[in-house]
Order: sequence, then structure tokens, then C-alpha cells
Amino acid sequence: MKAAILYEVGKPLAVESIEVEGPRAGEVLVRYAAAGVCHSDHHVMVGIIPAPTPIILGHEGAGVVEEVGAGVTSVKPGDHVVSVWRYSCGACEPCLSGRPATCGHGAQMRAGGVLSDGTTRFKRGRERVHHWLGVSTFSSHSVMSERSVLKIRDDMPLEKAAVVSCAVITGVGAVINGAKVRPGESVAVFGAGGVGLNAIQGARLVGAEPIIAVDIMQGKLDYARKFGATHTVNSSDENPVERIKEITGGKGVHYAFEMIGVAEVMTTAFRCLRTGGAAVVVGIADSKSVISINPVPLVTEEKRLIGSLYGSSSPRLEVPRLIDLYMAGKLNLDDLLTRSWPIEQINEAYGALLRGEVARSVVTYS
Amino acid sequence: MKAAILYEVGKPLAVESIEVEGPRAGEVLVRYAAAGVCHSDHHVMVGIIPAPTPIILGHEGAGVVEEVGAGVTSVKPGDHVVSVWRYSCGACEPCLSGRPATCGHGAQMRAGGVLSDGTTRFKRGRERVHHWLGVSTFSSHSVMSERSVLKIRDDMPLEKAAVVSCAVITGVGAVINGAKVRPGESVAVFGAGGVGLNAIQGARLVGAEPIIAVDIMQGKLDYARKFGATHTVNSSDENPVERIKEITGGKGVHYAFEMIGVAEVMTTAFRCLRTGGAAVVVGIADSKSVISINPVPLVTEEKRLIGSLYGSSSPRLEVPRLIDLYMAGKLNLDDLLTRSWPIEQINEAYGALLRGEVARSVVTYS
Repeated sequence: MKAAILYEVGKPLAVESIEVEGPRAGEVLVRYAAAGVCHSDHHVMVGIIPAPTPIILGHEGAGVVEEVGAGVTSVKPGDHVVSVWRYSCGACEPCLSGRPATCGHGAQMRAGGVLSDGTTRFKRGRERVHHWLGVSTFSSHSVMSERSVLKIRDDMPLEKAAVVSCAVITGVGAVINGAKVRPGESVAVFGAGGVGLNAIQGARLVGAEPIIAVDIMQGKLDYARKFGATHTVNSSDENPVERIKEITGGKGVHYAFEMIGVAEVMTTAFRCLRTGGAAVVVGIADSKSVISINPVPLVTEEKRLIGSLYGSSSPRLEVPRLIDLYMAGKLNLDDLLTRSWPIEQINEAYGALLRGEVARSVVTYS
Repeated sequence: MKAAILYEVGKPLAVESIEVEGPRAGEVLVRYAAAGVCHSDHHVMVGIIPAPTPIILGHEGAGVVEEVGAGVTSVKPGDHVVSVWRYSCGACEPCLSGRPATCGHGAQMRAGGVLSDGTTRFKRGRERVHHWLGVSTFSSHSVMSERSVLKIRDDMPLEKAAVVSCAVITGVGAVINGAKVRPGESVAVFGAGGVGLNAIQGARLVGAEPIIAVDIMQGKLDYARKFGATHTVNSSDENPVERIKEITGGKGVHYAFEMIGVAEVMTTAFRCLRTGGAAVVVGIADSKSVISINPVPLVTEEKRLIGSLYGSSSPRLEVPRLIDLYMAGKLNLDDLLTRSWPIEQINEAYGALLRGEVARSVVTYS
């Protein structure tokens, strides 16, 4: 059993052998095949998102159930599953309203780096190692609540499935559930990274037009056209507010999506809206930053600012649908997932991500 | 023909005789019976909202059509009408999307103090006097586009009808159309003035619970109970965020309405929301002020900030319905409209409004 461990903020991950305890009641042991290399985990590595150490990060993953604890009913050994990194109780107002990602019951797990009973299953020698978001996908084997996995069809390649459970559902879902974009409505997406590309292809799926990608890296913008971007704006050269107004005949867009997590970009996204438009914020910003909104056009032009988490829907409904769309040739995961690395090269994988060399990559376990 | 004229910002209104030219093509001459004494007009008197002078203010009014210009088809002499202070072209995207108040075509009229052809119909001696929002209800006689009036039923008292066309539709509509509050959802309303009382009774109409009124004047809070407030919070004594969380079992409200026009209160309203909740901004704030939003709960708790103008619907649909509700005994206008004054006493009427002595009052023309 092998995992990438973060011992200290600012240090590289150490790929080492670990011990994983078996699943307790309501838990499952998953043998991961692949895990997504996502920016959010890097936020923990550099201290932007706080977490206890040592910890096994990773929140996008797909694999096979190896063992189930007492009382588990939703999956059985041999089932193919993806990780669901937002724990939901299934019984509270957000869960019952179709927005389980906003369930409050996972907060202590997330902050404490523990499973839902407050304990851990990972050990390195005598030292206990923390879980991340209840799923810790940067480990070949991982124990988690059965509520933290969902079964997928067996013919879906696991490397591709790994990214559906976070980057794809977050981006596509922000468009189809968070904003509910309609055919012919105009869309701008700020940030053409792993999640942004999926907002772009979500906009393509629902027939939006135009679909304007905004980024500071020209390579990412060119690549965004593969996912349905009809226009690109390089905001290191051009003023995106002016350029977006120009593209939309002076009006601005119906929807502007912020996929980066920078408060100033959220404010800019709001300024690109036409009358009646909505800025949809997906990126997680520094909690000390502030979005500044001019109160007058908010009211006189009936604009909206909307937060969207994890695709604004139930992953249990949405992930299987997205996988069906991929298998039917209607969702582009092949250009999204451009590289896979053995877990031993996870630090190199993050280097490539930070340099913008890959759209999305996974680490795999042999 | 008599009107209250603002000659200079900061000065009282002067009630004087004026000349009113007859209606041109597409226009109507209305003889007003009553006009609402609204805070927004006071914003112009003191310079918070800019406008050219001399000008005849007033934007809530009800009266009888006296004369129509060529081509007018929607009303005829003798029809009872109310003023619609937001001009709409009927053909643009906002108009065709059911949000005519956000039509951009009235912007020049509003800024220039003119009718839609760029000219005026009011004169005082040799001086031309400006129109306000195309309706100028502080005049016994006023000419306006036929698009700036809508016909109402003849048995509706005109004094009561005058306030339906702005304060009532704006407050009730923010709840039923802007937020679409559902039975059993929780509501807080910041500002229990003429518009706020109508948000409160809108919340009562749709079966919201609890309905929490927030104000700094205890008299207004006590009065809000007549309109359906189940709880009141005096924010000069208590922290409204803490108190609202307490009333809602620690969760916060589904919807918080800002009816005052102060950016800091908008930020406070946002902080009172539960997961998935929306802050609905109705008040028009100083355009140099800024609403500050924490980007993290916006996303992780999927909150929303929504602007609502003029009830977020078509006045042509909504005003007749609201009048029917009043006539059926389901809308409280009798406690809303607590005083009427002859036009000669309009400055006294504003004094009483500013001192919080009246919920809503009208000036009348004899």
C-alpha cells in the first residue's frame, strides 16, 4: 500500500508505504486505480487551504471496492466507484433540497482530517496520518464512509472516471444546474483550466452562443476551442470587460463564470454581465479577500451573484449521467485528460500543472 | 393646473400654477387624483439622485385619462390609470423576458427629464420644466407616453391605487417574483418603511414563516406586525445577524430583503442567510458605495445576491392582480396609506415621512 504524504506545508509530497486499517461499520476500502491532479490539493500543499499534517491529499479518484464494513448496502466488493469529496448526511435541508454538497455535517471531518467517527485509518509506523475530505485519493488503498463513494458503470475507464467526480461535474454542473443556461444565451468563462474547460463544454452541451474563454495563458485559450469556446480573450493583453461587451454587441453576457478563486476576477465577471445576467462563482478564494459589487446596477439591471459548489446538484444523479454522456461520445474527456503519471511522479505532475502544460492529469497506481 | 416644482436641490418644493401642453402622438394627458409621497423623490430633492431642474417630481400616481394623442390604443378618455415610472419599449430583450422595468430605452428620458421624444410638455411662464421618470405625478395634470400608464378597474379608490404602482408592487414583487419565496421558508426584511411593509405582506401572502422585520425605529417595527411580521429586531439595540440566527435555530434565513438602499445593510443581509439562501436587494444605494461579499461562503454554502427592480415582473400583469387582491380583502392597503394631504402641503408630507410618522401617504388634487 503506497501513498503520497504531505508532512509539512511547503514541502514536496513523499511517496511511501503506509498501513491502512480495514473498514469499520458503514465504511468501505477502495483500491484506487487513478487520482486527479487538481489545483485544490496544491492549495493545501502551499498553505492557502489549512489542513492537519501529516495528511494524504487527493479528492478525485476512481477505483474498485475491495472490502465493505458492517451494514454497507450501496456498494459491494468488485464495484467500480468514484470518490465523492463532499460528505453529505442525506437527511438535512441542503441534502433534501438536492444540494448535498452544501451539507454541514462534513465540516468537522474536513477540518480535522478524520473520517465521520472522528478517527483515522492511515498509519505510517506509529504515526497516525490524516485523511483529506474523507476520501484521500493519493493512496493506492483508502478507507472511507460508504457515503463518500458512488458506483459507476463497469465499462467506464477508471482514469477518465477519476476526473468526472470533481473537475467535470463542478464545471459542467455550474452551467447546467447552477446557472441553468439556455440555448442561445451568452457565456464567458474566466479561467480555462481543468474546471473551466468543463464549464466551457457544459456551455457547448446546452447550446450557449457565444462561449467566451478568458485566461492569461494563450496556450490554454487555444486549447479551450477543443471544448467549445467560440471566442477567446487573453486578459493579460486585453481588458476583458470591454472585449466581452464588444463580442456581445455592447450588451455583455448572460452568464459569467469565475473558475479561478480570485476575488478581483469575481468582481470583473460581475462587470461583464448584461441586464438580467448572473455571475456564477465556482473558484474558492482566500477567505480574507472580498468581492466588491456596485449596488446600483445590481438593482437597476437586476443582476445576480451566485455561488456554485460541486456542480450544484447531487453527484449521485449527475456523475452517472456525465459518464453516460462520455460513453455516448457527447462529453470530451479525451482532450481533458492529457497525461497520466505513476504515483511516484506526483510532484512532477504538479509541476506540469502549475506550468500550464497539462489540461488535467491523473496519477495511477500499478 | 397645479404642480409642486423643485427649482433647486436642497430647497423645499414650490406649489405653483403651470401650463401643460396637450398630448402628442402616442401620448396621454392624465388628471391625477393622488400621488404617493415616496422616499425616492426625496433622494432627488437632496441631491442623492441627480436630475435636471426645474423639475416636477413624483412617480407614484393614479388618475383619469383626460385626452389622448394620435395612435393611442391602450387607453381612452375616462379610463382610470396608474403611472408606470419605468418606461419600457416592449421590444427589447428585458421587455420580452418579462422584466420590462430593466428596459434600457428609458435611460435618456430619465437622465434628461424629458419624454421619449426628448422634449417637455411643462412650462412655467417662459421657462420649460422637466418631467420626472416620464410621469411627474406631483402635478394635477401631466402628459406622458401611453406606455407610462396602465388601465385599472374603475371601482378601485384612486388614492389607494396610487401606491400600488410603486411601493406595493416593488415590495410584494421582490418576494413573489424576485425571490419566489415558498410556503414555510424564512424571511427577514431590512427596513419597515413603505416598500418594506409590502415585502412583509408579500411574505405573508406566500405563507413564509418566520417573517422577521428589522429596523432602527421601534414604532415602525410595531406597525410591521399589522402586515405579517412574526418577529421584530431593533437593530439599534441588537445585532441583527446574531438575532436572526437565534430566531431561525442557528441557521439563518432563506431570504433577506434589503429595502433601504445602504450598502452596509446589504452586506449584513447577506450575512444573515442560511446555506442556499439569497439576499435580495431592492433599495437603491449611493453609486459610489460598495457591497462587500465574502467569496468563501458564497461558494461553499451556495448563497446568492440578487437585485430586484420594480417587483421583478411586468407592472401590466402585476398591478391589476394586486388591485384585485386588495378588493378581495387579501392585501392591506388601508393600514399602509395612513394619511393624505392636499398638494399644497407636500413639504409637510415629506417632513412626516422623514420623521417616520406615516407608513405611506399621498398628496391629492382638489
